[in-house]
Amino acid sequence: MGYTEKDWLAINTIRLLAVDATFKSNSGHPGAPMGMAPVAHVLFNKFMKFNPKNPKWLNRDRFVLSNGHGCMLQYALLHLFGYALSMDDIKSFRTVDSITPGHPESHDTPGIEVTTGPLGQGISNAVGLAIAQAQTAATFNKDGFPLVDNYTYTFLGDGCLMEGVSSEASSLAGHLQLGNLIAIYDDNQITIDGDTACAFTEDVVKRYESYGWHVEVVHDGDNDLESIEKAIQKCKDVTDKPSLIKLKTTIGFGSLQQGTHGVHGSPLKADDIKQVKQKFGFNPEQSFVVPQEVYDQYHKKAAEGAALEEEWNKLFADYATKYKAEYADLTRRLKGDLPEGWEKNLPTYTPKDAAVASRKLSEIVLSKIEAAVPELIGGSADLTGSNLTRWKGAVDFQPPSTKLGDYSGRYIRYGVREHGMGAIMNGIAAYGTLIPYGGTFLNFVSYAAGAVRLSSLSQIRLIWVATHDSIGLGEDGPTHQPVETLAHFRALPNMMVWRPADGNETSAAYYVALTSKHTPSIVALSRQNLPQLEGSTIDKAIKGGYVLHDEEGADVTLVSTGSEVCICVDAVKYLKEKHNLKARIVSIPCFEVFDSQSKEYRLSVLPDGIPSLSIEVMSTMGWERYTHEQFGLNRFGASGAYKDVYNKFEFTPEGIAKRAVATVDFWKNVPNVRSPVNRAFQQLI
Amino acid sequence: MGYTEKDWLAINTIRLLAVDATFKSNSGHPGAPMGMAPVAHVLFNKFMKFNPKNPKWLNRDRFVLSNGHGCMLQYALLHLFGYALSMDDIKSFRTVDSITPGHPESHDTPGIEVTTGPLGQGISNAVGLAIAQAQTAATFNKDGFPLVDNYTYTFLGDGCLMEGVSSEASSLAGHLQLGNLIAIYDDNQITIDGDTACAFTEDVVKRYESYGWHVEVVHDGDNDLESIEKAIQKCKDVTDKPSLIKLKTTIGFGSLQQGTHGVHGSPLKADDIKQVKQKFGFNPEQSFVVPQEVYDQYHKKAAEGAALEEEWNKLFADYATKYKAEYADLTRRLKGDLPEGWEKNLPTYTPKDAAVASRKLSEIVLSKIEAAVPELIGGSADLTGSNLTRWKGAVDFQPPSTKLGDYSGRYIRYGVREHGMGAIMNGIAAYGTLIPYGGTFLNFVSYAAGAVRLSSLSQIRLIWVATHDSIGLGEDGPTHQPVETLAHFRALPNMMVWRPADGNETSAAYYVALTSKHTPSIVALSRQNLPQLEGSTIDKAIKGGYVLHDEEGADVTLVSTGSEVCICVDAVKYLKEKHNLKARIVSIPCFEVFDSQSKEYRLSVLPDGIPSLSIEVMSTMGWERYTHEQFGLNRFGASGAYKDVYNKFEFTPEGIAKRAVATVDFWKNVPNVRSPVNRAFQQLI
Repeated sequence: MGYTEKDWLAINTIRLLAVDATFKSNSGHPGAPMGMAPVAHVLFNKFMKFNPKNPKWLNRDRFVLSNGHGCMLQYALLHLFGYALSMDDIKSFRTVDSITPGHPESHDTPGIEVTTGPLGQGISNAVGLAIAQAQTAATFNKDGFPLVDNYTYTFLGDGCLMEGVSSEASSLAGHLQLGNLIAIYDDNQITIDGDTACAFTEDVVKRYESYGWHVEVVHDGDNDLESIEKAIQKCKDVTDKPSLIKLKTTIGFGSLQQGTHGVHGSPLKADDIKQVKQKFGFNPEQSFVVPQEVYDQYHKKAAEGAALEEEWNKLFADYATKYKAEYADLTRRLKGDLPEGWEKNLPTYTPKDAAVASRKLSEIVLSKIEAAVPELIGGSADLTGSNLTRWKGAVDFQPPSTKLGDYSGRYIRYGVREHGMGAIMNGIAAYGTLIPYGGTFLNFVSYAAGAVRLSSLSQIRLIWVATHDSIGLGEDGPTHQPVETLAHFRALPNMMVWRPADGNETSAAYYVALTSKHTPSIVALSRQNLPQLEGSTIDKAIKGGYVLHDEEGADVTLVSTGSEVCICVDAVKYLKEKHNLKARIVSIPCFEVFDSQSKEYRLSVLPDGIPSLSIEVMSTMGWERYTHEQFGLNRFGASGAYKDVYNKFEFTPEGIAKRAVATVDFWKNVPNVRSPVNRAFQQLI
Repeated sequence: MGYTEKDWLAINTIRLLAVDATFKSNSGHPGAPMGMAPVAHVLFNKFMKFNPKNPKWLNRDRFVLSNGHGCMLQYALLHLFGYALSMDDIKSFRTVDSITPGHPESHDTPGIEVTTGPLGQGISNAVGLAIAQAQTAATFNKDGFPLVDNYTYTFLGDGCLMEGVSSEASSLAGHLQLGNLIAIYDDNQITIDGDTACAFTEDVVKRYESYGWHVEVVHDGDNDLESIEKAIQKCKDVTDKPSLIKLKTTIGFGSLQQGTHGVHGSPLKADDIKQVKQKFGFNPEQSFVVPQEVYDQYHKKAAEGAALEEEWNKLFADYATKYKAEYADLTRRLKGDLPEGWEKNLPTYTPKDAAVASRKLSEIVLSKIEAAVPELIGGSADLTGSNLTRWKGAVDFQPPSTKLGDYSGRYIRYGVREHGMGAIMNGIAAYGTLIPYGGTFLNFVSYAAGAVRLSSLSQIRLIWVATHDSIGLGEDGPTHQPVETLAHFRALPNMMVWRPADGNETSAAYYVALTSKHTPSIVALSRQNLPQLEGSTIDKAIKGGYVLHDEEGADVTLVSTGSEVCICVDAVKYLKEKHNLKARIVSIPCFEVFDSQSKEYRLSVLPDGIPSLSIEVMSTMGWERYTHEQFGLNRFGASGAYKDVYNKFEFTPEGIAKRAVATVDFWKNVPNVRSPVNRAFQQLI
């Protein structure tokens, strides 16, 4: 309350930084920053707790710009508060190698919590951040030690509300009664296609109430700072529900084109810029101007934030003496390190052990490591009993009032919401204290593709437990049988796609997934039982690819993954008996990891002089990188018992042998067969 | 009204067919059919208009089982009504090559309108079917000729409601005031993880009201057939809103495990089956029993449907004489044929024509063919001005009361709802009178991956106008720049992914997309301008790949797509001048179509004896199938002006030449370099 000209000066400074930066780069979105500068000013100055000198302070309030195209708003704020984002960075907006890209990227820019821009992701990440806060608080806070009590704030636009991912995450947030989450909806009535009247006429207030949210409406977000402040305060006062504030604003406030989609995604014209600056009392001939009193006001707030952290550090030091174990655990987690020796819990297998589905092998891993790795927080998109993602005795993450669990729980019932789950996991991981994993069928990881690519881009550690990974799921049929899915995610940079063949490889997949701090993983797991293989070990498998079975003077190398490796083992015998051919077997459970090995190692696995054949019940796309010939499934599967389906498509020892013979015949006249590992030049990375 | 024992006999017959079929196949979902048999019986007998002898009758009511796992319900209905689905087919449930797969597949089974199972798709397809009905009615109905006045009914479960795609489609359906759409929500309170209380506690009634739907609640869907009938009738009476009926049922009604998730996805135990049969008055020792009176009742209804069609055929014959042109148009559309000579409207180009972005070339195609191909119905996920999907003068498909268009409109404002758009397009295409296309950025087609794979699986003709197809979009940065997307969709069976290099190739893409009745297409289009190439023609490009530039005694073949082809043209000059190397250029705008050409043709394009290098600013995955070496982008892009981004990653004549030289050097000692077109064996298709 008590807003003065000083506040409007700051607000208009932010607006004009967005105007100048988009004009200079001749690209970008001035409209949202101009419309949302007032609420941003109020939120950041009156409510948010943060220290620009330490953007990683654990108990900071989180801010997520879900309408990420408005990022000049956020860059302007970061600059004014004194984060490591200079005026030169602002001037480099949307230029190559700047820290001010076209949409906010968390791995590049200090103060950006999560990578946004693809609509609907940010609000869903915010739900994840709020879940992580609640879980961390329930785990670590003690009487007199409110170590983490931060809020998560997010701004979002119509576009975010239209995207299904936000519906999924918002419905779950209501169920989970996340009182620490406050979303501010920029109701400017404008979309790229024009007015929201042409496609978006739902009653947003009613919809969010139906999800169990508290909703406030502010009618004049352009001018009425007091009402904005009151609304945010009311939302903070509601502690058992997430809150949405519907804030009426004028997009491009101040522009001659304000209130139209003309200011959404294009810079203002030079004349318009002049008149805006005049209107706001700025010199129309100057650009990138920040009055000193604005810096002063914002730096004062920043100093208050630094003082808050100082206080918190004392609290934390006190905590360290009283709760040694918890302190050690929490500080370890914040570094991203795993507990020493945790990997000793990973199970190992010998061929004498029983055949087990790899989804079950995954369950065994989770059960064995959950105590040693307390930052693991699991869940499933309503397929717990199929994904086998819940260890025995796990507590559900639920509002205590439901009597179904509590906030210290480490298992999340995501509901049938794969995309929401993916985006929420991104948010959970971004909080800094937890490592999320989530289960669904491999085929339905595709529903979450939008979130998955942001996991990769923003270098987040998380795990998709992707069961029912092929036609081997059998009767559910082609609607549920992935064919293109591995190719899709293998083509995604910085994504590890694992498809383990047995118990040792499953342990290896988890080992690498959990120790890779900046890379997400998808672990593709079978529904059907797989034997424990002769020749597999964790140490070999963590290289991503290795020789499972060698043979002096081999005629052919069979290269495979997952449930087809054991069929290759039988095919080797068949080839020897029926065709007098010698075959090696190579298992490549993870392309991404295998590719990162030395060329020398890769050539030892896939040597010159021997033709090779890949075998995988999926699209062959991508296998040409490793093998001369490919046996795969470049068509949809079929509904039936899994063995019948494998037989139909000839994924049998005989079917493999037939193609291995063809491979040997085809390559026998080629002298010095060259391994596909040999390339003319290095790829850019 | 006036339900008797006869009705309950039929209902219990359906329930037991589901019980027996899932037991025999030892797989499947008995719970939903047992719970929904009453509402199915009422809906199909009292309301639905259909003729089992002609499942393609235009004016039939459409039924969509959005909770597709309950497909034994639908198979039982189809069988009882006398569709071409025999008792042997029922007994072959979930076995290889049956027409009764684990989830309903429209291309396999008569009477199945759309392929469902992946949750949330069916309800969204239903929105598309309802849109298509409204558009077709507005286009073809005349005074006294209500040619199409059918309804679309859909059953859905909790899972469908949780999926974001259904939120997107339902919000749009409310906006569009689709009074011809009635959805029945099986509120059985059970999900795979247990009770809906653990993850789904939103107020569904309020949510659907917020979307602008009419909502009815039936409290006893297990027993109260009268209330079910009344509710459906009330929904039919509301003509300016879609309707949802929230129907309380007991999952697995009759089983000892009724009302638990134990009956969701597993067959009943033998003992349980016996007691259910006894409870329902059936012989517990017999299976797959249909009392003759049930057949009689259902066949009577079928005969009434046949009579309705007969009447309609007369109306249509009358229409034929009065509205010759409309009749000819409609009957042509129903055959899936395009108007004769439509392709003459496709623009052609010569190198003298101006450089134009391929998104603009796409707009030109659409503008030139829209009049000739009146079944085209376009739209965009709120990127109309960027995708250039709306021809000048197009009318929006909107409720007339909005004054923004009318139901005869051929342009849909989908809002920021890519997944919803994809699923709605599947429904529109399934109606039979329209060919949908929809625009978004290529990167965000991934948001719709769940719907896209169903387009392919169910062999639907539609077009994604996927603009901003690479790092060439520039400033928006890596959050918007696709890298993995082409590999993803190229790996999808029965999907044509086009990336045209110029105007002739863009025309070719549309030609093949529109003339391929059973294959969807994604057309990837540039934001930046592309020159018209010497050597391109529509005739060459419709082969999917061709020699753009030949050179006697070439040292290397450059193989490329889209916006990189013109850079290859400059690289050829550079190679000649600086390195005295001769290079050919091959353009492969569509893998899927090129792969379908004869081996002889493909070898003429990619001949033996010449090493080849692919150039595409994407993941290299898949290019090894065509080329010896690959230059691509196996990392995320960057935010900046597009030329700067291309320079950063060396997609320049110099950068290409450098790698071409490396390719020539690397392969020069290999005698008789073999074209990758040569394979040891044929792939299964």
